[in-house]
Amino acid sequence: MVTKMTSPGFAEKARPFSPPAGPVFLEEVEASALSALVAQDSLIGSTLRNERDAFKRFLQAPVDVPGSGPGGSSAHEAHKHNYQMIFSGGRLWQIFRDERYPRRIRDILLAYARRYETLPFAVPNTPNPPGRLFHQILNEHMWLLFSAAGYGSIREWLSEDDQAMIEGHLFSPMVDMFTRTYAHHFDIIHNHGMWASSAVGIAGLATGRRDWLDLAIHGQNGDDRTAGFLAQLSGLFSPSGYYEEGPYYQRFAIQPMLLFAEALERRCPALTIYEFNDQVIRRGFFGALSSVLPDGTFLPLNDALKRMNVDSLGYVIGASTLFRRYGPDPRLLWLAERHGRVWPDVSGGMLSQALEDARERAPEGGLSAPSVELTCGRNGEKGAIGIMRADDGDSGQAVASLDYGTHGLEEHAHFDGLTLGYFAGGHEILRDYGSVRWINMEPKNGGSYLPENITFAKQTIAHNTVTVDEAAQNGGNGQHAMKRHGEHQVFFSENPDCQMMSGAIREFDPGVTMKRTVLLVRHADFEHPVLIDLFRIFADRPHQYDYALYYEGQLVRMDERFSAAESLSPLSEKPGYRHLWKRGEATLEDGATRLTWMQDSEYVSLSLAASRPATLIATLVGAEDPHFNLRPETGLMIRVNAQDAVFAAVVERHGVFDEARELSARTEGQIGGISVLFADGEHALLALSGKRQSWRVAIALKPCSPDTGHHVAGPFGEVTWQGQCAFIANESTFCNAV
Amino acid sequence: MVTKMTSPGFAEKARPFSPPAGPVFLEEVEASALSALVAQDSLIGSTLRNERDAFKRFLQAPVDVPGSGPGGSSAHEAHKHNYQMIFSGGRLWQIFRDERYPRRIRDILLAYARRYETLPFAVPNTPNPPGRLFHQILNEHMWLLFSAAGYGSIREWLSEDDQAMIEGHLFSPMVDMFTRTYAHHFDIIHNHGMWASSAVGIAGLATGRRDWLDLAIHGQNGDDRTAGFLAQLSGLFSPSGYYEEGPYYQRFAIQPMLLFAEALERRCPALTIYEFNDQVIRRGFFGALSSVLPDGTFLPLNDALKRMNVDSLGYVIGASTLFRRYGPDPRLLWLAERHGRVWPDVSGGMLSQALEDARERAPEGGLSAPSVELTCGRNGEKGAIGIMRADDGDSGQAVASLDYGTHGLEEHAHFDGLTLGYFAGGHEILRDYGSVRWINMEPKNGGSYLPENITFAKQTIAHNTVTVDEAAQNGGNGQHAMKRHGEHQVFFSENPDCQMMSGAIREFDPGVTMKRTVLLVRHADFEHPVLIDLFRIFADRPHQYDYALYYEGQLVRMDERFSAAESLSPLSEKPGYRHLWKRGEATLEDGATRLTWMQDSEYVSLSLAASRPATLIATLVGAEDPHFNLRPETGLMIRVNAQDAVFAAVVERHGVFDEARELSARTEGQIGGISVLFADGEHALLALSGKRQSWRVAIALKPCSPDTGHHVAGPFGEVTWQGQCAFIANESTFCNAV
Repeated sequence: MVTKMTSPGFAEKARPFSPPAGPVFLEEVEASALSALVAQDSLIGSTLRNERDAFKRFLQAPVDVPGSGPGGSSAHEAHKHNYQMIFSGGRLWQIFRDERYPRRIRDILLAYARRYETLPFAVPNTPNPPGRLFHQILNEHMWLLFSAAGYGSIREWLSEDDQAMIEGHLFSPMVDMFTRTYAHHFDIIHNHGMWASSAVGIAGLATGRRDWLDLAIHGQNGDDRTAGFLAQLSGLFSPSGYYEEGPYYQRFAIQPMLLFAEALERRCPALTIYEFNDQVIRRGFFGALSSVLPDGTFLPLNDALKRMNVDSLGYVIGASTLFRRYGPDPRLLWLAERHGRVWPDVSGGMLSQALEDARERAPEGGLSAPSVELTCGRNGEKGAIGIMRADDGDSGQAVASLDYGTHGLEEHAHFDGLTLGYFAGGHEILRDYGSVRWINMEPKNGGSYLPENITFAKQTIAHNTVTVDEAAQNGGNGQHAMKRHGEHQVFFSENPDCQMMSGAIREFDPGVTMKRTVLLVRHADFEHPVLIDLFRIFADRPHQYDYALYYEGQLVRMDERFSAAESLSPLSEKPGYRHLWKRGEATLEDGATRLTWMQDSEYVSLSLAASRPATLIATLVGAEDPHFNLRPETGLMIRVNAQDAVFAAVVERHGVFDEARELSARTEGQIGGISVLFADGEHALLALSGKRQSWRVAIALKPCSPDTGHHVAGPFGEVTWQGQCAFIANESTFCNAV
Repeated sequence: MVTKMTSPGFAEKARPFSPPAGPVFLEEVEASALSALVAQDSLIGSTLRNERDAFKRFLQAPVDVPGSGPGGSSAHEAHKHNYQMIFSGGRLWQIFRDERYPRRIRDILLAYARRYETLPFAVPNTPNPPGRLFHQILNEHMWLLFSAAGYGSIREWLSEDDQAMIEGHLFSPMVDMFTRTYAHHFDIIHNHGMWASSAVGIAGLATGRRDWLDLAIHGQNGDDRTAGFLAQLSGLFSPSGYYEEGPYYQRFAIQPMLLFAEALERRCPALTIYEFNDQVIRRGFFGALSSVLPDGTFLPLNDALKRMNVDSLGYVIGASTLFRRYGPDPRLLWLAERHGRVWPDVSGGMLSQALEDARERAPEGGLSAPSVELTCGRNGEKGAIGIMRADDGDSGQAVASLDYGTHGLEEHAHFDGLTLGYFAGGHEILRDYGSVRWINMEPKNGGSYLPENITFAKQTIAHNTVTVDEAAQNGGNGQHAMKRHGEHQVFFSENPDCQMMSGAIREFDPGVTMKRTVLLVRHADFEHPVLIDLFRIFADRPHQYDYALYYEGQLVRMDERFSAAESLSPLSEKPGYRHLWKRGEATLEDGATRLTWMQDSEYVSLSLAASRPATLIATLVGAEDPHFNLRPETGLMIRVNAQDAVFAAVVERHGVFDEARELSARTEGQIGGISVLFADGEHALLALSGKRQSWRVAIALKPCSPDTGHHVAGPFGEVTWQGQCAFIANESTFCNAV
């Protein structure tokens, strides 16, 4: 990947600087300020006490420096615990001046130093090269970053012999391995590269090695373009702060990003790293936050663990350091309150104090954020991720997401252009599978990605989008996919009662163009916001189109024509499809269906109209899964064989189900059906029908101003509206039109 | 069912009493006392305010008295809401003296009275007869109970014409229908009979109808034996307070039981109903509570909705009335705190005050209760439900249950003799399916039981026990099953570190005797209590034995010999089996297997040894389920073909899994295998093996005193211990022996 320096001159600022060895994150005066806060009844106080207690427990256990082991093994966990304690203990030594702390850190680091060079390389279980302590070098980067910082805190306390032993026989061979043995892996623009450069940079600051620091900041070629921290900060973020690999890996990459930035700000202030690339650190942090779902989990684009959330360490570091470096923001207070802790340095003390001072606490309903279009690409030129949010009273926010951006870096990207996500009422309603991976779980390939991540999770059919001829988009070829991106068409969120976003992908499948328009509508006729989806396909020859939606819960009303399979077989032999059991099907001569499922305590009804005839297929994830690596998620698929095709769907949440109260109410939604009355290149008109009334959804497919008048006419009569979209109740009344 | 009066003389006490019409639950002096509490910042205050607010909302809606509709329909819900509001509004009228309240109640009751006799019988969808308002008469009982009580509160305010209209054209035809048209249904000892008699009795008290009251208390035959409230109280409970139909229906039956008892205590105190049958009301209430799991849900014996819990109305009524009538108990305070409300009468005021006075609140970990053997049968002569509880630190209590009691009444009983339940760490580890029913859900047969309740949920194979030759116990015949019961053998809970229970069933399958012994062991070698199961079978000829366990979660380590099915077919055509997909199997030449799954945030490892050879089968509920009525629960099955057979298993919880913290630790348990070293009629000796050590489990199979010495010898050496059971670590050290 070719990147350009966004801010010429930054690199030069760093060149003349030669840092002295020593503490990376804490000055003596700061340490003494923190020591005064330990007894305080506040987040900073309890954070410091908890760290001290954890370290005291660590002191009671013997020094444990094993060889390597697979992810999730006791050896793996021991090395991880050691670096966390070395890091924490160094800071605690600076604050508490208890000599037991540096003594223990010295003993451990010497044990590592005596052994490190004699250790063989670990057995790799991923395409990434192995370390001597861990099965992949990435974990060794993490080890060095935290351990070197801890070492910096106690370096002065150590004898010169011990310093020489640790720096010469532990850190040096480790940095050599990172930067020479695995030079190709050090010089990548990728979350691993972010970790690698930050680790080597912090080791350089702790030990006073100017060469390591240069390498870390500027890369092996010293060009700030192909590698190094500055190149990472230039190449991985779009102007909106969207991170190339998606929110899940953003959460991981911000850890080293924030730590090395903070270290550079302290030890190399001339670099003014927090200003670099139009404050990319601020943009990257808040860009990720804007894609967080109301329950704190990440929008599951690309490889993602579904339960990973903002409790992740990077957000603990970021809440405090951003508060100090960029100033107050209510989202940072929300994070601190949720975490119940702060980052144990001066910035954490400031955030803790701000939380004490805040009169009102954050609302309990979870993170409330504005609708946002996260543009992709270095200059925002490669499509976007659209995220629309509608407030829904006690149910929190309803959030619809549409991916018409970049593929993401090859390793963790999914072939899921135009995938639709829907989170509402505290649940993921339209579900993304995430990745096939059981983190740090030894018997599951040591916690690495499992084969089904490629054969299922990355495949287009595993997503809420349309699969053409049972093949992944871009032929399932990541290199090809990285050359393409989606197109922004409309992102309109100014009317909170009728928001709309629209994107397109071209040639993701040969000769096929797909356009998806999604609306989030609030109206008094409905209990909750209603999601409306219009998916149009244009092709140069006929294809099979599979429009897929994954849901969670119990089917309550199924299409009456549905015929359940008497035995379950894989849907086909194609990638993705071979992991789907076919539960049954229904032929939809009219292309329409309607069904209801129950998710937790509410009902979700889906009405759908497709090009006719269509077939409805019910699926269950888990075929060809001999090792039980997959979760049994349930899905629906509408299959159409045609050249051009259209799918229109509406998702309505309604009613309540409460077993303990023996209550089930409003099991029928208001909307009984959907149809496409009109669609051309400029406008679309949908009809929603109910028992007692009907509604129309009028859409201007191209961007327009609020006062642009629109007009469509046909057998359905004549409909006029102003602006981007209008939700029209009772046929004659304009509602929510702008 | 033949029952005997437990307490002769009680019936006679009630005979001479002729109650005046009027309020059933609230005297004027009590109403005025309550009115003084409305503004109070306490549970009674907020309860009363919330009731008033709800009734005010009700006043704003129009009077809605529809015809009948299926369960979950708007008509069904409207009738239900009406009776709740009539009940509540009557009480609020007595407290607040706001004339809008009786006016609205009068309007509704007159609307019902004008219409009731003209309504046709509803369309039944259960074997129970239909009412005119509801699809089953049971709901009409509920309607009368609450509406008559509300009517009693406002009767004095009504004109005589209105009284005559409501009593003559609504309550009278309703009572006639209950007691004459459906006389056979009124005279049953069953939760429906409890509702019927209580409803008619409360109607009798509200209207001054001595004949109705007599009928309600003494039944149609007036014998206090075949029917009536006293017969219900005599026939449905064992000495331990165990309710014949199991905890789930106990929760339902205690509502009318508590309300009619309270009404009788007020209006007919000479009956001293709270003393009746050795305080059966107290015994029944606390008996049910002792079977509640730590999360407040009910032990899912027989038909049960899995999410039903002590938030159910009966426990709100009971917490308050038992507090007043039988005195304070910490469990009642726990309930009140959990409910966040009390019963809105004087008893609720007392409980509310007690909670305010309590210095320490209940622990957050949930209900903590002692181990208990709930004997079954009128005189406790028909086996028992054994419930052993072991404290487990922050994880709350671990609870093992074993059913060696009665079948339960035919309608809701399952063929699940010797079924094993295990709840620990806040989760149901070994799971019971419960019932196939989606409460009040109109499209799911109106919320009634679904066909799969019989074809799956009631079948033996749906439970954690052994199925013989793929047939339900007692041939799946409820009448036969009700004639049999299990046998108590040992219930030993005096040593909290080594508890044991043992039960047997004979001739549930022809010529087959089964004995199951379950231990719950705490030991410093393990993170959590360990569950040990020894299941022995003795038969007069060879059979196929399927030992089944249902679990929830992701299989992490499966038996290496397991071969996954390429397509899924039902396990067989037999009842129960035809709803199980066969996911694959492994031949266990040695009869032994070991596997691990992950449930939420912890690991569960199962080690098992069966008679050899055995077959391990993995199952998934959901075959032959065209309407998606079943939940996709996962199961394991060990199949042995033999005449006599033994299964020994140990379930160990360990480690932690936390995606957000990227933590997976201790994925391997301590126990790697189990074997049966010795077993005869007197003793059993099991061996547990681990990587670094081994343990022995020594069991005296017959009851013995703590100082009885035991001795077994064999190729394994010689083992001696004292008392019922001993857990022996490191082969030579006695641990937890009594």
